[in-house]
Amino acid sequence: MARLVMKFGGTSVADMDRIAHVAARVKREVDAGHQVAVVVSAMAGTTNQLVAWTNQAAKMPDRREYDVVVATGEQVTSGLLALALQDIGVPARSWMGWQLPITSSDAHGSARILDIDGKVLEAGFARGEVAVIAGFQGLAPGGRVSTLGRGGSDTSAVAVAAAIKADRCDIFTDVDGVYTTDPRIVEKARKLDRITYEEMLEMASQGARVLQTRSVELAMVHNVRVQVLSSFEDKPGTLVCDEGEIVEQEVVSGIAYSKDEAKLTLLRVADQPGVAASIFGPLADANVNVDMIVQNVSEDGTSTDITFTVGRADLDRTVQVIGALQTKLNYRQLLHDANVVKVSVIGVGMRSHAGVATRMFTALAEKGINIQVISTSEIKISVLIAADYTELAVRALHTAFGLDSE
Amino acid sequence: MARLVMKFGGTSVADMDRIAHVAARVKREVDAGHQVAVVVSAMAGTTNQLVAWTNQAAKMPDRREYDVVVATGEQVTSGLLALALQDIGVPARSWMGWQLPITSSDAHGSARILDIDGKVLEAGFARGEVAVIAGFQGLAPGGRVSTLGRGGSDTSAVAVAAAIKADRCDIFTDVDGVYTTDPRIVEKARKLDRITYEEMLEMASQGARVLQTRSVELAMVHNVRVQVLSSFEDKPGTLVCDEGEIVEQEVVSGIAYSKDEAKLTLLRVADQPGVAASIFGPLADANVNVDMIVQNVSEDGTSTDITFTVGRADLDRTVQVIGALQTKLNYRQLLHDANVVKVSVIGVGMRSHAGVATRMFTALAEKGINIQVISTSEIKISVLIAADYTELAVRALHTAFGLDSE
Repeated sequence: MARLVMKFGGTSVADMDRIAHVAARVKREVDAGHQVAVVVSAMAGTTNQLVAWTNQAAKMPDRREYDVVVATGEQVTSGLLALALQDIGVPARSWMGWQLPITSSDAHGSARILDIDGKVLEAGFARGEVAVIAGFQGLAPGGRVSTLGRGGSDTSAVAVAAAIKADRCDIFTDVDGVYTTDPRIVEKARKLDRITYEEMLEMASQGARVLQTRSVELAMVHNVRVQVLSSFEDKPGTLVCDEGEIVEQEVVSGIAYSKDEAKLTLLRVADQPGVAASIFGPLADANVNVDMIVQNVSEDGTSTDITFTVGRADLDRTVQVIGALQTKLNYRQLLHDANVVKVSVIGVGMRSHAGVATRMFTALAEKGINIQVISTSEIKISVLIAADYTELAVRALHTAFGLDSE
Repeated sequence: MARLVMKFGGTSVADMDRIAHVAARVKREVDAGHQVAVVVSAMAGTTNQLVAWTNQAAKMPDRREYDVVVATGEQVTSGLLALALQDIGVPARSWMGWQLPITSSDAHGSARILDIDGKVLEAGFARGEVAVIAGFQGLAPGGRVSTLGRGGSDTSAVAVAAAIKADRCDIFTDVDGVYTTDPRIVEKARKLDRITYEEMLEMASQGARVLQTRSVELAMVHNVRVQVLSSFEDKPGTLVCDEGEIVEQEVVSGIAYSKDEAKLTLLRVADQPGVAASIFGPLADANVNVDMIVQNVSEDGTSTDITFTVGRADLDRTVQVIGALQTKLNYRQLLHDANVVKVSVIGVGMRSHAGVATRMFTALAEKGINIQVISTSEIKISVLIAADYTELAVRALHTAFGLDSE
């Protein structure tokens, strides 16, 4: 007997047929003798409609009332799935965030889960009952409804799994696992059987939007084994787990890319102490998240060129902030380019393997791809290149690191 | 400064434009210096959709889960109206049944309100805040969501008004008040300025479906003054109040009719003690509500004919129950007729005025309408007639009791 959390996203519960299908899927685990807690999202489309209404109701919707409205989507699904389970003979009951409770911070609209007491759910298991938990929602201080922000149901599921010490947290979704890279670009992309938390975090933040980043962080902290699998096909997915569970670790597990980048270059900034702080301080104050940074000393030795990247949505704001610093920084020119992409090779194996960077740069050079900026971490090497080369680069790296299938 | 409860039904909050309109209406009372609690229904159509889903999810939906699903409609509206109020500068917050709490019985799907502590709302008034309360829902024992049954938001509103000792409970709806009779039948029907609780109860149960019966009972018990008025037109409605508040009481306030009737006659039942009990006992056991009953001794003096009415929806069940009693009761024949209507004249004034019955029977006789069954209460006389005569009878009575306008 195992204890499982099963999480179903919006497309998996999009209509009554699919909810019945989900109920049958849950029943299989119950029939196999497992204790099951299910976490559900709102039916696909519902949350968008609710959010649209809040924006029609007020120009600046109070996040507390926004949460009251938006949290109803998951409440509906949890009640309906409990009914569908009962209808096929599986004892089940729904749980709202405020009932368990799933206590959260008061950051309405993007609250963080503070605590879930597993005892209530364990009492339900003892009665042979499946718990159907409304995802994405919690109980904020003062007894108000909170929501966790988009994709929050993944986080709910992992938090529940941690609270009841589940053997596994299965995230059912519309893809069948985590791939070595985006299968829409690389036909030979392979589904990974296993991936470490660290790699998954890099994959997620690099644009492979399978699991919400916060849910992976939470899983890593509490050592919750998370499986990403298809709710439509009946086959194993990808297990996100601790490095120790992966026997034969590849050097590189995957290639990620992110188009959500913009590059800025300040030409001829005075090369003196404190110049970096006077650029990046004001940007931090303006809530602009700076990713890659490169600084080169220019030929004359008295001035320097500084290049950095920000999220594409922040580009206009960044240009504004830096423009306002012209007098102070006395740079010659500010260049910016949103036509760039960040491509990364990711793998915990590179900690113990040299030569990854060389192999990467060689593969790109062979295709005539110019590298604009480089940044590295312990398990990742990222390069910024012209956006036109995205597919070419990803395919070349996928082949170079032996990730192609067959 | 007065303290008001304002209740808005489904058509009054059917879309975002109407919710904005409601917010403006509430603002007027706030600007006039009043303390306001608003009770809202679900957006028109929402509850039907939610109920349909529960019926698709399970053949016999668990009422507790049904409540979880169906209660979301009011939650959405309360959040949206709070937002719309804030947007026009009126401090407001939403309240779910479980937050106040509005404690209820555990009769899920048709729970009764047990208690509302007005203190929380009064604290909100002290902060200058409008309370926007989700109608129709409560908190059942065990911390589960309950709903009060169709039309339950009226009851929520009256219960809130009782809890905070409101000066008035305004029920905004798609009609502009209570009429002397159905204006679709009688062009000269008049809107009543005032009507007593007792009369309103008879009007409601007789088919003038303006206010939910339970809400009127509750208003009578707690002496809550209830105004029924239009949410689309800006004019006073009908005040439902204590008899003492009505200076010049008409003998008859209104004419009601109900098509939801069926008549059954048992011919030649043995005329002996206990026969009535052996008929109506089994019907009560089968949950059939019997309304009018007439018993005539037949010519031979040893047997009797018994006629009674039930709700039309219960006719088949009644025929079944009585059919099974054939051997025991040894009646000659069971006749039934669903083609009947009950027409009633209603007025607290008839307590002190004789001659109402005579005037009623004369008016019907003059139009050649045959009376099949008669029943009376202190403030009401009802007759059962053939359904074809409905409009003719209602118009004749409306004129005979001087209710026609002009």
